[in-house]
Amino acid sequence: MEFSSKLLENAVNEMAQLPGIGKRTALRLVLHLLRQPEYQTFQLSEALSNVRAEINFCKSCHNISDKEICEICENPNRDSTLICVVEDIRDVMAIESTGSFKGLYHVLGGKISPIDGIGPQDLNIDSLVEKVKSGLVKELIFAMSPTMEGDTTNFYIFRQIQGYNVTTSTIARGVAAGNELEYTDEITLGRSIIDRIPFETSLKS
Amino acid sequence: MEFSSKLLENAVNEMAQLPGIGKRTALRLVLHLLRQPEYQTFQLSEALSNVRAEINFCKSCHNISDKEICEICENPNRDSTLICVVEDIRDVMAIESTGSFKGLYHVLGGKISPIDGIGPQDLNIDSLVEKVKSGLVKELIFAMSPTMEGDTTNFYIFRQIQGYNVTTSTIARGVAAGNELEYTDEITLGRSIIDRIPFETSLKS
Repeated sequence: MEFSSKLLENAVNEMAQLPGIGKRTALRLVLHLLRQPEYQTFQLSEALSNVRAEINFCKSCHNISDKEICEICENPNRDSTLICVVEDIRDVMAIESTGSFKGLYHVLGGKISPIDGIGPQDLNIDSLVEKVKSGLVKELIFAMSPTMEGDTTNFYIFRQIQGYNVTTSTIARGVAAGNELEYTDEITLGRSIIDRIPFETSLKS
Repeated sequence: MEFSSKLLENAVNEMAQLPGIGKRTALRLVLHLLRQPEYQTFQLSEALSNVRAEINFCKSCHNISDKEICEICENPNRDSTLICVVEDIRDVMAIESTGSFKGLYHVLGGKISPIDGIGPQDLNIDSLVEKVKSGLVKELIFAMSPTMEGDTTNFYIFRQIQGYNVTTSTIARGVAAGNELEYTDEITLGRSIIDRIPFETSLKS
């Protein structure tokens, strides 16, 4: 790609470093900004550098927060003995939007993935183990994505906290609401039969 | 979408104003930046505000340029009597990369599109007509996309310069190199028969 302007080339190259954005898309986006009023670009530019420079992570759960301790952790109405272990902040947002969980979270910041060079020491696992050791946690809910890396991470944490007085559970895997049985994959359908629940229980939710 | 941080929410909202980028993608991109070293975000942020603040358009052809007159326009080896009329700078880049064109360009900055509220006065048409009136231009090549808006724009310009001593042409429409005839649409295939060229001519390129 030959650019007639160094400034443009520079902006496109920086934009193209974002995941899923190639050079062509980056060029389209930058040209779009050039057609918009100047303030739009300046607002975007400032918002990005502000969030990067001033971002804070909650000291307790490692969720993104503008304060030392996030709103969820400091909410006295939430059950601090129940901790949901998730991969990243998007999972917190997804679970929060269900309105079904009243405990706290613990954001690991990734999952164990030797292929990507991510080991347990790169994740917020130590602070989770410390929480469990403190004896104030009654139950850990593992809510990692049902992938090999997710399972590995769950199992690693499970081994670390063995011997401590804490219940562990994992979110249910099964047929999604509204899905047709015949289009559900075998592993999920198989698990949903093994993990079947009493019919009366299903009526309650 | 509920955010645990105003800074994050702000960055995501600004990012989501870019075309083709929804809130979810914007969140993914911003979280990616937060995981990268700080300098990457600052470089992106600076490159964007720099390009927006300091961008120049060539006084002659309206291509994006860091100088008053772009490199193509000031190149003495190019034929200044031959002008290729294009919609935007991406078309200049596409034609330049073919290496088949040795004339100059004229970037309109869009196409006439009443639905989007874009009329002739919003495009760089007056300066093109002035160039033709000066008598220094021998041929205009219309290289707009073969859409209704492109055709309208071509025809509008054609009417403006009627009576002046200039040849006009439009880029050939036909079957693309490597395409199977049976998968080519009827309009294109029909045109390619009407616009057939002597076989000997086809051997030369």
